[in-house]
Amino acid sequence: MRHNFGAGPCILPQEVFKQASQAVLDFKDGLSILEMSHRSPEFEGVMAETTKLVKDLLNVPSGYSVLFLQGGASMQFAMVPMNLLPEGKTAAYLETGVWANKAIKEVKFFGQANIVASSKDANFNFIPKQYSIPEDSAYFHYTSNNTIYGTELFDVPQTKVPVVCDMSSDIMSRVIDVSKFDLIYAGAQKNIGPAGLTVVIVKDEILGKSGRAIPSMLDYKVHIDGGSMYNTPPVFAIYVAMLNLNWLKSKGGVAEIEKENKAKAQALYAEIDRNTLFKGTCAVEDRSIMNVCFVMENPELEKPFAKFADENGFEGLKGHRSVGGFRASIYNALPITSVHALIDLMQEFEEKHKS
Amino acid sequence: MRHNFGAGPCILPQEVFKQASQAVLDFKDGLSILEMSHRSPEFEGVMAETTKLVKDLLNVPSGYSVLFLQGGASMQFAMVPMNLLPEGKTAAYLETGVWANKAIKEVKFFGQANIVASSKDANFNFIPKQYSIPEDSAYFHYTSNNTIYGTELFDVPQTKVPVVCDMSSDIMSRVIDVSKFDLIYAGAQKNIGPAGLTVVIVKDEILGKSGRAIPSMLDYKVHIDGGSMYNTPPVFAIYVAMLNLNWLKSKGGVAEIEKENKAKAQALYAEIDRNTLFKGTCAVEDRSIMNVCFVMENPELEKPFAKFADENGFEGLKGHRSVGGFRASIYNALPITSVHALIDLMQEFEEKHKS
Repeated sequence: MRHNFGAGPCILPQEVFKQASQAVLDFKDGLSILEMSHRSPEFEGVMAETTKLVKDLLNVPSGYSVLFLQGGASMQFAMVPMNLLPEGKTAAYLETGVWANKAIKEVKFFGQANIVASSKDANFNFIPKQYSIPEDSAYFHYTSNNTIYGTELFDVPQTKVPVVCDMSSDIMSRVIDVSKFDLIYAGAQKNIGPAGLTVVIVKDEILGKSGRAIPSMLDYKVHIDGGSMYNTPPVFAIYVAMLNLNWLKSKGGVAEIEKENKAKAQALYAEIDRNTLFKGTCAVEDRSIMNVCFVMENPELEKPFAKFADENGFEGLKGHRSVGGFRASIYNALPITSVHALIDLMQEFEEKHKS
Repeated sequence: MRHNFGAGPCILPQEVFKQASQAVLDFKDGLSILEMSHRSPEFEGVMAETTKLVKDLLNVPSGYSVLFLQGGASMQFAMVPMNLLPEGKTAAYLETGVWANKAIKEVKFFGQANIVASSKDANFNFIPKQYSIPEDSAYFHYTSNNTIYGTELFDVPQTKVPVVCDMSSDIMSRVIDVSKFDLIYAGAQKNIGPAGLTVVIVKDEILGKSGRAIPSMLDYKVHIDGGSMYNTPPVFAIYVAMLNLNWLKSKGGVAEIEKENKAKAQALYAEIDRNTLFKGTCAVEDRSIMNVCFVMENPELEKPFAKFADENGFEGLKGHRSVGGFRASIYNALPITSVHALIDLMQEFEEKHKS
């Protein structure tokens, strides 16, 4: 039995793997999903169903479009200012980690980024809370979950300017109020599907106001008009996203998975706080329910614990190099039994190494 | 038995489907290829092997980089001028179809496109041959195979300016001399792998000369420096490309598949020319060995033939709306037995409908 705590591309439900595997062999009349035309009625059905699943699961209000694009969040770092930031204008950014920082760096090609707050000096181990967003900002951008540091921003910051959010690593993990956002984007490879797909949810009325001429593939309006099929979409990734979102729906949707995710996170953080060998790395009130970062009180025990975990079938527990220690990513598809197994492992390790 | 003549995403070898299906269930130690970290040694091995396969199969000279990107050829329509065309300068384009035209349209965001020749007035049913490429062009761009019209440009046009080629639908189908090109790009979904992957082969020395500040994800140099892993790559699509290129290698490589492709094309064109009911749609000397377009002498027989083909398990034979009639796409993975089956079908239909 293996437990995949990897930060992404990450575990998806076993039944999704089975269904996807079968569709690679035979999706329809003996044809593989990999050889289906994206213009076939069958794939058009997949696209329609996947779109509907995103809308239903997140309760997307009317006036918003759901897009399936390529290039990951990194491409959105450029597409957002390209589409939303008029020449020479300023957008407000909250700097909560390396990914927020990468988003900030892409703004310079289109205008200015105003970093309204940053926790960089504390190695991003908390979410800044006291800051103001200038009302003349073209938009306010933040990262809702910081995979590297294990911090998460749960309450949408209040502002009068359009809110843009990189939700790559916590979309579909908890209930959100989409109406509070003007644009949400997410690389699919955590809670949506496999790598190679990006989901964008955009309020139609904010588009077309930058005054900038935008190449077709970088223009949200072009993709809206094309129903995410302006060009050949990543057929298989969208199909697997459909399977995975159907799994989520069958589990009771986002509200139900949120309960499970919180239960998983609470159990694991409780053990980190209780266990004499481990400690958390970030501010308790900002602890992510997706990525649980922890280190050892005695750094010399890190290698032995890593080895112990590896020998027992635990994958992907190594922390990011900029934080060190360990990171347990506990996305939607990670079963609570894997979390309990990890807790058992930590307790067993404590027994062995108690001073 | 089904015969998939679809124009793309298209048929891949059956053994590739089997191997890909298995890897979705169990790629390594019970983990799916869909849940593998792109930073894992296993996937780094996949990336290295796929890169080597492209280089070996196409005999890519030193001084060139092979990149695996997202966004399809359509994204390249913009990335090419963004990276290669200095502000206000002109690039030469050969207009041989709708895709060439789409590439031309994206140039205006970065400079000017000079259409050196076009076969638009003839609905792109031939490849223009008499034209000159101004020596002060930043580059010359052409489409080597035009899927919609069934035309193909076999000899690289001679010019002193850098040559850029959209090889989406004939890359890996016949031997090419990469040293004659400065940049080759191809959406993967014909002879390389599934949709959601773009292969770029670029001569390193032509980069960094546009004088333009380029967003990271749109800058070839960033992707070269990142080894196509500046951000999360489309893991599964690259893995399937590796399987497919290994299949091609095992068949004897590009020179061997070229013989087979030519045999398939010759057999089918011979039948089109012989059969009293059918006729080809484009100039004989420009006939593509990948997409064979044909119509019926009597248009009233088109629906009955389409129905007859459908009843006999033939998929994807419908011609593009701008040409009409039929299109048999006979990419690498389409077995010659499927071509023979189509020829038999055409002969059987002729017997039934002989006047």
